[in-house]
Amino acid sequence: MSRLVMKFGGTSVADLERIRRVARLVNAEVQAGHQVAVVVSAMAGKTNELVAWTDGAGPAAPGLTPSDDEYDVVVASGEQVTAGLLAMTLRNMGLPARSWMGWQIPIIADDAHGRARIDDIQPEKLGAAMDAGEVAVIAGFQGVTRDGRIATLGRGGSDTSAVAIAAALGAPCDIYTDVDGVYTTDPRIESKARKLAKVSYEEMLEMASLGAKVLQTRSVELAMAYKVPVRVLSSFVEPGEAPGQGTIVCDEEEIVEKRIVSGVAYSRDEAKISLFGLPDHPGVSSAIFGALADANVNVDMIVQSHARTADTANMEFTVGKRDAQRAVEIVRAAQPQIGFDDVAVNEDVAKVSVIGVGMRSHTGVAKSMFQALAEKGVNIQVISTSEIKISVLIDAAYTELAVRALHAAYGLDQL
Amino acid sequence: MSRLVMKFGGTSVADLERIRRVARLVNAEVQAGHQVAVVVSAMAGKTNELVAWTDGAGPAAPGLTPSDDEYDVVVASGEQVTAGLLAMTLRNMGLPARSWMGWQIPIIADDAHGRARIDDIQPEKLGAAMDAGEVAVIAGFQGVTRDGRIATLGRGGSDTSAVAIAAALGAPCDIYTDVDGVYTTDPRIESKARKLAKVSYEEMLEMASLGAKVLQTRSVELAMAYKVPVRVLSSFVEPGEAPGQGTIVCDEEEIVEKRIVSGVAYSRDEAKISLFGLPDHPGVSSAIFGALADANVNVDMIVQSHARTADTANMEFTVGKRDAQRAVEIVRAAQPQIGFDDVAVNEDVAKVSVIGVGMRSHTGVAKSMFQALAEKGVNIQVISTSEIKISVLIDAAYTELAVRALHAAYGLDQL
Repeated sequence: MSRLVMKFGGTSVADLERIRRVARLVNAEVQAGHQVAVVVSAMAGKTNELVAWTDGAGPAAPGLTPSDDEYDVVVASGEQVTAGLLAMTLRNMGLPARSWMGWQIPIIADDAHGRARIDDIQPEKLGAAMDAGEVAVIAGFQGVTRDGRIATLGRGGSDTSAVAIAAALGAPCDIYTDVDGVYTTDPRIESKARKLAKVSYEEMLEMASLGAKVLQTRSVELAMAYKVPVRVLSSFVEPGEAPGQGTIVCDEEEIVEKRIVSGVAYSRDEAKISLFGLPDHPGVSSAIFGALADANVNVDMIVQSHARTADTANMEFTVGKRDAQRAVEIVRAAQPQIGFDDVAVNEDVAKVSVIGVGMRSHTGVAKSMFQALAEKGVNIQVISTSEIKISVLIDAAYTELAVRALHAAYGLDQL
Repeated sequence: MSRLVMKFGGTSVADLERIRRVARLVNAEVQAGHQVAVVVSAMAGKTNELVAWTDGAGPAAPGLTPSDDEYDVVVASGEQVTAGLLAMTLRNMGLPARSWMGWQIPIIADDAHGRARIDDIQPEKLGAAMDAGEVAVIAGFQGVTRDGRIATLGRGGSDTSAVAIAAALGAPCDIYTDVDGVYTTDPRIESKARKLAKVSYEEMLEMASLGAKVLQTRSVELAMAYKVPVRVLSSFVEPGEAPGQGTIVCDEEEIVEKRIVSGVAYSRDEAKISLFGLPDHPGVSSAIFGALADANVNVDMIVQSHARTADTANMEFTVGKRDAQRAVEIVRAAQPQIGFDDVAVNEDVAKVSVIGVGMRSHTGVAKSMFQALAEKGVNIQVISTSEIKISVLIDAAYTELAVRALHAAYGLDQL
C-alpha cells in the first residue's frame, strides 16, 4: 500500500457540502489503494474571524507581555474544527478515519508563535494508524512547542504542514486548491495563460515568493529539501469527475523539455523606499539593513546608485507594503548613524518577474525582457536577478500590460 | 496568597466587550490578593454553531463508526477560543496570564465522548504557574482521555471543570452567571422570589437536577463530595461596581437558620410514558427499566398502580422529552417479553418540586403541598419524594399557577 498526503485549503472546505466533496476525493484515493493522510485548513473566512477577535482583544501595548502564543491558541481552533468535521464525514461514508491535532502527532514546532517553523515530526503513531487502515485527518497550520504550547506556522502554513508530513511519511503530496494547476501567468490578467504539466522546485519557489499564490514558499522549500513530489490540482470537481492531472512540482532533472522561461509572476505587495544623499563610504549598507533586520523587516530588491556629485549615493530597496511605514521609522531613527539627507516611500509599484530554469544555460533572456517592456513604454525602476529569474520594479499601473507583453515575448501562449 | 477559581459562562463571554468585563472582575480578585484560575465557556452561540456543523456532517448511520470523539474535537474548539482571548485581554491590562487547554493541564477524562467524566486532574504545573503570579485561564468543558483524545463533559460541563479544578487546587469556586444568585424560585414566574444568602449542597443538587438552571448537577455533586465552597454571582456588573455577595452553596452545618423549604423548582423537560395492562408478577419492572437503561435512557419518576381487575397493573414513568419517542420504541420492541396491552406518551406535563433540608426534621410538608395545589384545582399525576424534596407531575398548563401557590404556601416571599 502506497501512502499519499492530500491537502485541502480553506475554499475547498468552506462548508459542509464542500467537505463532502473533499471526502469523495479522499475516498477515490483510498479505493485506488492508497493509505491517505489529509491535511486541512480552516473553513474559508474562519481564520479571518478568529484573527479579528484577537485584534479586538488587542495586541499588547509596549511594556506588556505580547500575546502571540495566545493568538495561536485562538487561531489554531479553525483547523481543529475542519479536521473533526471531515473525519465525521469520512466515517459516514464508511471509511475509518480520525482527526489529529498538531500536539497529538506530535508536530514539534519552535516557539516563534504566529510564524513558527517545524522542528520535527514524529510520524510513528500516525503511520501505525494509517497502516491499520485509518484515514488520518490532520489539522494543518499548527504544531506544538517543546513545552506543550500550540504554535501556528503563519499564513499558508497548511501547505507547509502537508509537505512536512509527506516528507516524514515518505509520501508524495497532492495540494488541492481552487485552481487546477500552475499557470504560465495569472489567467485573470492573460487569458492565453497555459497550465504547466511540470514545473521544477526552483521555478515554483520563485513563483511562490514572487506572488503567484498557488503554493506557500516555505512548503516548496521543504519539498525541494526532502525531494517530496508535489502535485497541484483542483478540488472543485463534480461527483464522479476526476480532478485531472494538475501540475507536478518536481526536480529539474525530471523535466525532459526544459523551457527557457516557464512563467511570468507579479506582486503588488511591495513598497519602494528611497534614501537620498548617503555618505559614500563602507558600512552604510550594513547600518541600514542591519537596523531593518534587527526589527525583522524583510528587504527584497536593493539597488544603490551614485548621485551626480561624487561623494554621496542614493539607495533604493523594497519591503512588504505592511512593513513600509515601520521601515521608514526605523531608518529615520538610525539617521544619525547612517547619515542620509532624505527618505521617500512609493507604494505605487509592482514587481514583475520572468522565471525559468533554462536561464542557467541560455543568454539573452534579460535583453528580451527589457526590450519587450521598452516597446510598451514601461519604465524600469529597480532590477534584481537570480540564477533562474529576472525581476523588475515598475509603476503599478503598468502591471497587466507588462505581464501580457512578457508572456507573449517568451512565447508562453504557444506552449 | 489564597487561591480562587472563577468561572464564567457563555453569556458572560459572549463578545469582546463582555470578555473585558470578565477581565476587570478577575483583576479585582488579583488586586485583592488572590491567585486566580479562571474557567471559561465558549462565547454564547458558538457551541450551537459548532454542534449544528457536527449535525450536518452527520451522526454515523447504523453499522458505521459513531463520531462522538470527533464531535468533541469540533465542539471543544469554542472554549479554546475564549481562553485565548481572555488571556490576551488580561495581558493587555498588565496581568501575567496564559491559557490552558484540558490536555495541557492535564484534566484526564474517561472516553465517554460527549459526556465524559473527569477521572483525574494533575494540578502541579497549573499551581506552579499560579504560584509564579500568572492568572491561569482554563478552557472549560474539556479534558483529555488517557490515549490523548479530546473529550467534552457534556452541556454545562464548564461548571464541572471549575469545581473539579477548585477541588484539585484546594480553592473555593465562584460561578459567575447571568443571575446574581440562587432564588427561592424562578423570578420570571414569581416576582416575589427572593435571593437565598446560603443554600446547602443537597438543596442545590435537587434544584439543579429539577430544572433550576443556575448550576449543572454534576458540578454540585462534585462540590459536595470534595467540600468545595461554591458561590453563585452575577458577571453583569458595570466597571467599578462589585458583583455583590451572590449565593453561597455550602455544607448544611454552615447554615445556621435552616428553612423547612428553601425553594420551588420546576421542569418542563420531561414526558410521561404510560404502560397499560401489565402482567402483575415479579420481573416486569426490571424488564422495562432494564431495556431503557441498556439504551442509556434516564428514567426519573416512576409510579405503579393496579388496574381494576386484580391481575394487571399500569406503570407510569417520566423520561427526558428528547428521549420520549426512543423510550416508546424500546418498550414496544420489548413488548413480547414485558407483555403489556398499550403504551401512551404525554409530553404536556411539568414537574414541580419543593426542596428543603428542613424536611428531614419536619413533617407536614407534603400535606401543605397537596393542600395548596388542591386549593388551586391542580391535579397531581405522579408523586415522587426524596429526603429533602417532594416532586409532583402536573398538567404543564398549570406550571406557573402551581409554582406561585407553593411559593406562597411555604412563606418563601417573606424570607
